[in-house]
Amino acid sequence: MKLPLTVEWSDEGVRILDQTLLPEKVSHKVCRTVEECVEAVQALRVRGAPAIGVMAAYSLALALKREKPESRAAFLRLLEKHKARISGARPTAVNLTWALRRTASVVEKSDTEEVAALHALLLAEAERIAEEDRRLCEGIGAAGECLVPEEGGVLTHCNAGALATAGMGTALAPLYLAWERGKRFHVYADETRPLLQGARLTAWELGEAGIPVTLLCDGAAPFLMARGKVRMVIVGADRIAASGDVANKVGTYSLALAAAAHRIPFYVAAPSSTFDLSIRGGGQIPIEERDEEEVLSVRSMRVASPGARAWNPAFDLTPAELVTAFVTERGILKPPFAEAIAGAFPPSGGGGAGGRDPR
Amino acid sequence: MKLPLTVEWSDEGVRILDQTLLPEKVSHKVCRTVEECVEAVQALRVRGAPAIGVMAAYSLALALKREKPESRAAFLRLLEKHKARISGARPTAVNLTWALRRTASVVEKSDTEEVAALHALLLAEAERIAEEDRRLCEGIGAAGECLVPEEGGVLTHCNAGALATAGMGTALAPLYLAWERGKRFHVYADETRPLLQGARLTAWELGEAGIPVTLLCDGAAPFLMARGKVRMVIVGADRIAASGDVANKVGTYSLALAAAAHRIPFYVAAPSSTFDLSIRGGGQIPIEERDEEEVLSVRSMRVASPGARAWNPAFDLTPAELVTAFVTERGILKPPFAEAIAGAFPPSGGGGAGGRDPR
Repeated sequence: MKLPLTVEWSDEGVRILDQTLLPEKVSHKVCRTVEECVEAVQALRVRGAPAIGVMAAYSLALALKREKPESRAAFLRLLEKHKARISGARPTAVNLTWALRRTASVVEKSDTEEVAALHALLLAEAERIAEEDRRLCEGIGAAGECLVPEEGGVLTHCNAGALATAGMGTALAPLYLAWERGKRFHVYADETRPLLQGARLTAWELGEAGIPVTLLCDGAAPFLMARGKVRMVIVGADRIAASGDVANKVGTYSLALAAAAHRIPFYVAAPSSTFDLSIRGGGQIPIEERDEEEVLSVRSMRVASPGARAWNPAFDLTPAELVTAFVTERGILKPPFAEAIAGAFPPSGGGGAGGRDPR
Repeated sequence: MKLPLTVEWSDEGVRILDQTLLPEKVSHKVCRTVEECVEAVQALRVRGAPAIGVMAAYSLALALKREKPESRAAFLRLLEKHKARISGARPTAVNLTWALRRTASVVEKSDTEEVAALHALLLAEAERIAEEDRRLCEGIGAAGECLVPEEGGVLTHCNAGALATAGMGTALAPLYLAWERGKRFHVYADETRPLLQGARLTAWELGEAGIPVTLLCDGAAPFLMARGKVRMVIVGADRIAASGDVANKVGTYSLALAAAAHRIPFYVAAPSSTFDLSIRGGGQIPIEERDEEEVLSVRSMRVASPGARAWNPAFDLTPAELVTAFVTERGILKPPFAEAIAGAFPPSGGGGAGGRDPR
């Protein structure tokens, strides 16, 4: 299966597929400075919680490579400075801070004084995060494949596919595997206003993979369910609290309410790094509010009435009780979620964000 | 309060405010033939169930004026032909067929042989429907004004304002009256994909009236409710069954589900002509499916991935049990709705669609 490569390390910098230009242009960009890396994350050239994590780790490696510190102490000082700079890029996805802490801690734990060796450690850890992300996606796919129906409709929101990760995606991974195994379902994808990731990205990558997809306006999804066209809903996540409350692309909560009303299973697919065990409930997750222009315009064309204002939360919160199950690389987690999540990602067990780096 | 005039009769034809050009251009167009009238309805130059009713009546008067039949028999034959032509323009709004039946029946009931007199009857009835619509809107406003909070948020969907009627609107009428009486609420308007009637029309007409409005993406509305920002939801309707099931702009059902989950009152404002007592439940209401290009593009600019397909129902169905009350010119109708609707619009009582013309 041919899948796009979203983020990779190159000698000149961090090479990304610029997703703001999709689907019109498949164009790569090399971010040569940490400022360009931060801009790429903020402008959503790279997006999706797992891909943002990989991007953050590479950005940190790039920052230290360019700075050329002369001592271990200087290296560590600069590491702190750039960690702070990069972690401020976007507030909701926990993978961003998780990846930064993880790469930085490898350096902090090493006792070498050699700057070149410290940099090699940093880059190696970033590469490891990217490689792990590929394996995590496969693990999510393997765990979730059994949930995908042989036929009928599967609804998804935003883009939680290959474009959102370094691998085959989170929510789309079970679909890719199921398709390879001969299941012949049909994907319905919310267009996902304001930035149309469903129309631009999910339709594009599923189309490239030869999986049939029908777009619909976000507000039409509950009616599609009422018409009996949806056998399951599967979405990704930007951060999942210890309780199982989920922050994901705005519009997810609407789908979850409608799925519950129609007794349609609602799955959230995410790697361990998306679970933030330091946060008990969804109310504590910071929700990024983006520029109102994203709502007032479409692809830079003004559509709203002159003078109109808009509210533009990038994410919303879906309470755990609306989630049927989580699909993770450690398997499927069922309610009660607080216990299932704590069991899957024990604090000392080398698990995800919460496990590796309890705050 | 200065409100736009959507449809009026003129010597050259039916003069409309072309809503496809709003908010960029406030431009009127004269439809000089019945074909132009039908095109205007299908292309949504005139939209909103009550305005479509007025437009249909004027279109019929225009058709017969241009045909110049020479006998009563020829007049009646042409009346039938054009009724059929116009009633096919859009399938969901019952006001369209209601207005056609009502104007035609005035001619059918008259026993004059004079063609000029028949035409005068036709036009007079169309004018009466337009004038009545103005009064119906005021009646809806008067009935619903007490429901509007003194402050806090009121959420609406699509455009059920002056632009959707010949008067001050349906869902927006109580808001206009409440504002005039000094209530200082804040309107939240769903942008309403695919055609962005909220962003283009509702934001425009509320802005013209000086009422503060904040737009949001359709999928964000449930999160706005979860944040405690919404005190009431009020929408219009294209057809209401005897049971109280409502066909309205796609996305309405999503709002109704979310309002129920948050125990926020969900009101549907509509004149008697929108109630179709010949239809028992929502399942029998025909739902118009429009061109997929409306979803794949925004304002004629392609946004979706090349080759992508889309599903584009113009309306959805909200079951009666999710409606808190109907706001009509006959007052507020509360559950149980089957009884309340039958009581408000008795078959013989000169009520709305069902009452005047039981089918």
